[in-house]
Amino acid sequence: MDGFVKVNSADNVAVAINDIEKETAFLDGVCARSDIPRGHKIALEDISAGAPIIRYGTTLGYAARNIRKGEWVNESMLKLPPTPDVTRMTFSAMAGWDFPHTPPKTTFEGYRNPKGGFAGTRNILAITTTVQCVAGVLNIAVDRIRREILPRYPNVDAVVPINHAYGCGVAIDAPDAAIPIRAIKNLMDNPNFGGEIMVVALGCEKLTADRILGEEDNNRDNVIVLQELEGLEAMIGAISKMAESKLKRLNERKRETLPLSELCIGAQCGGSDSFSGITANLAVGFASDLLVKAGATMLFSEVTEVRDAVHILAERCVSREVCKKLADEMRWYDDYLEKGRVDRSANPTPGNKKGGLSNIVEKAMGSIAKSGTAPIVEALSPGEKPERRGLIFAATPASDFVCGTMQLASGITLQVFTTGRGTPYGLAAAPVIKVSSRTSLKRTWKDLIDIDAGTIATGESSIEKKGMELFDYIIRAASGEVMPAAEKYGIANDICIFNPAPIT
Amino acid sequence: MDGFVKVNSADNVAVAINDIEKETAFLDGVCARSDIPRGHKIALEDISAGAPIIRYGTTLGYAARNIRKGEWVNESMLKLPPTPDVTRMTFSAMAGWDFPHTPPKTTFEGYRNPKGGFAGTRNILAITTTVQCVAGVLNIAVDRIRREILPRYPNVDAVVPINHAYGCGVAIDAPDAAIPIRAIKNLMDNPNFGGEIMVVALGCEKLTADRILGEEDNNRDNVIVLQELEGLEAMIGAISKMAESKLKRLNERKRETLPLSELCIGAQCGGSDSFSGITANLAVGFASDLLVKAGATMLFSEVTEVRDAVHILAERCVSREVCKKLADEMRWYDDYLEKGRVDRSANPTPGNKKGGLSNIVEKAMGSIAKSGTAPIVEALSPGEKPERRGLIFAATPASDFVCGTMQLASGITLQVFTTGRGTPYGLAAAPVIKVSSRTSLKRTWKDLIDIDAGTIATGESSIEKKGMELFDYIIRAASGEVMPAAEKYGIANDICIFNPAPIT
Repeated sequence: MDGFVKVNSADNVAVAINDIEKETAFLDGVCARSDIPRGHKIALEDISAGAPIIRYGTTLGYAARNIRKGEWVNESMLKLPPTPDVTRMTFSAMAGWDFPHTPPKTTFEGYRNPKGGFAGTRNILAITTTVQCVAGVLNIAVDRIRREILPRYPNVDAVVPINHAYGCGVAIDAPDAAIPIRAIKNLMDNPNFGGEIMVVALGCEKLTADRILGEEDNNRDNVIVLQELEGLEAMIGAISKMAESKLKRLNERKRETLPLSELCIGAQCGGSDSFSGITANLAVGFASDLLVKAGATMLFSEVTEVRDAVHILAERCVSREVCKKLADEMRWYDDYLEKGRVDRSANPTPGNKKGGLSNIVEKAMGSIAKSGTAPIVEALSPGEKPERRGLIFAATPASDFVCGTMQLASGITLQVFTTGRGTPYGLAAAPVIKVSSRTSLKRTWKDLIDIDAGTIATGESSIEKKGMELFDYIIRAASGEVMPAAEKYGIANDICIFNPAPIT
Repeated sequence: MDGFVKVNSADNVAVAINDIEKETAFLDGVCARSDIPRGHKIALEDISAGAPIIRYGTTLGYAARNIRKGEWVNESMLKLPPTPDVTRMTFSAMAGWDFPHTPPKTTFEGYRNPKGGFAGTRNILAITTTVQCVAGVLNIAVDRIRREILPRYPNVDAVVPINHAYGCGVAIDAPDAAIPIRAIKNLMDNPNFGGEIMVVALGCEKLTADRILGEEDNNRDNVIVLQELEGLEAMIGAISKMAESKLKRLNERKRETLPLSELCIGAQCGGSDSFSGITANLAVGFASDLLVKAGATMLFSEVTEVRDAVHILAERCVSREVCKKLADEMRWYDDYLEKGRVDRSANPTPGNKKGGLSNIVEKAMGSIAKSGTAPIVEALSPGEKPERRGLIFAATPASDFVCGTMQLASGITLQVFTTGRGTPYGLAAAPVIKVSSRTSLKRTWKDLIDIDAGTIATGESSIEKKGMELFDYIIRAASGEVMPAAEKYGIANDICIFNPAPIT
């Protein structure tokens, strides 16, 4: 199968590692009947119309017409199978999970937090907003703080405004408003922010400070209300002064050696291609298993991209409750899409298809590879904080910037991001490690990709080797020993909170 | 009625101009039965349970219990009347509209555009994005362009990145996706951007460049695809180089004397109180009538805040078609809110209520005052561009930052913004003139409020005088002779596009 990757012995298609010319013949007697672009599928045998097309040992769909051995199998040739029925999923306790590799490390250098919970990988002052209205003033203040005040507090890594499009002109009591409100509330508690609360409010917005702050925090030490201040200079003065008092305390934080059970990281993929599921995501899955075995907490997400493989995740849930919550989140999202009169076929993207991903089933199988093989100990609603430690499904949209924001709300302090097509995505509040699914991307974007997993497909490396390399890089990045590219260059996306409720 | 404002002779409530103490008596025999906060309503006569409570000559609601003359009438005492039925609205041709005042000016100094249409009030390079993924890189490039390149082109006012949360991880073919896509497409054509097209794309997003660009514009002179470039420096280099070629051309633009028919401005209110509808919004309405009479185009918006007064707007529509489009937009929004399981009672905000606005009917009556008395020549779907000139209803959410973004997409080159409670709102792509509804706000925020209309309530000024003053200020701001506060200080909100379709 030189030139092609077949993942599972049951597969009747394989994926081209490079562009394949028409009439190229392969060891096992398959001959390409047309040019086949890199990342796309070839039929390994004749497949009759209506018969299953199998990759990862799973039915991706049914042949829309007779397909001959050696033909290029693209998205027009597959009919989608029915969506897995979430009302009849089974779980197993997975008591026997044993990952046969030993984590090379069980500690990292992190910032312990005063209230306990997960530790930080960075030391950041976050300034939260109740409403977009204040963003213009806050941005001016943050520029000044970064220039004039932050340099006096060298142990603090950054000042990050949490600007968002929520807070007013929204149906604040709509059932789904719970999601954006919880996200803003929980974002403040991200372990990278050291337990310091600082909120800039307007004064007449719907998202009043008491909706996101407990009584003990909702006071003048933590909350600035612009409508109570006399003009712009007073506003900037008040924001700067409060920021300085918080920076002083944050500056006292020191890294210490902590068990990996205090580390919470997220995994995400974006701009995927058909290599993602055979290289980068498998390497992340291996690293994830190592991390979980070492006691760390690992979040994976993206409802629409796991939806078609959810029955496989259900089998990995540790209890009926976790399985039920997982099913509830899927059902919620099914309804949400239906209200908008769309369905899961809205995914994959044109870029995914160009990269060889024919449909959402194929994308889902590649996507869940990131979660490795560990038992799933918890399922979270969008932006919820975990109560358990280990591998956790955090329900978020698959949109990169929304998933990133919502995982930050759930408390990740570092994210591993796999990409096939390439995206310069980054987060201001946590380092993002970029893993490429193919070597050609690493070659083009050598300064933006931290780890190349493309060598898994060519045989130069292996899932195990790359997984180990990634594990090591994660620990070093979490410990502040290396800065991933996006962090080094200051590439950060906006905070994009998931708001499924109406705006008014 | 010293101390109170009664708007219409049919009204059975009046509004306190200042905080009123219990037992204060007024000329016409009304005596306050409790302290009444400024901006709140007092009953001018006994009102029986179930009887209408009338302000602006319109029923705001029905008394929830017997209310005695002199009582404070707050939101708990009103029951909402039924929503106006948009299926049975009547329009009148309004052929006889004649506003009995003469515009003191019929020209302004603007930037004519190569493709015709409205003229610019500013000369700005906009860099549009197809997707949020590129925002991190674009922001780095824009910082560099502002520092190193823009100073060489002194006739250009600013470089503005059009970053937004749309573009991927969205249901791009959902019926409602037409709204955000149109908004991004039309934003690029804002007259302040001088007809220069510059788009930064990623390469695998759902919002491909051809969805927002015509064939003639979709080429390498206008579109940069990050996935085609070799790393961050190449990306920043390519963006800087394209920006410079656009800046060179924009730098040739010169202001010239143009008829007001080439001016398109927007009106909006935010952080309203019950003074908004008796001071600031009436002054804007007067200025709007002057502008429309002089040939200008004036957009007003905010569906949820006109919904309960829409039958009054319908009567001002110039044709059955305009009336029907207006009704269609209301119906669309009714459905949208219903899908989210909320209704119009989600508005007003806590701040509005604190300011004395009891319900959405009272808010709507104050809100539509901004539109003056002119005939309504067109109704636009969210983000649509006008085809006619004159007074136009542009359907947008009432959310300040979303309304501002969507009015920019419809082509406004300046916005008049009234506020009672106060907001530091601003737009990067067009000057925003802030008009306060009460003098105390102007006193507190003297550097942020451009015009104080509060003096209308105290009798120191009048609607006509303030309207004239505002008209003059609008022309001078449009002509670049004055910079409103938000522009002067660089206070700008984010681009917040209205996306009612699901994200995936």
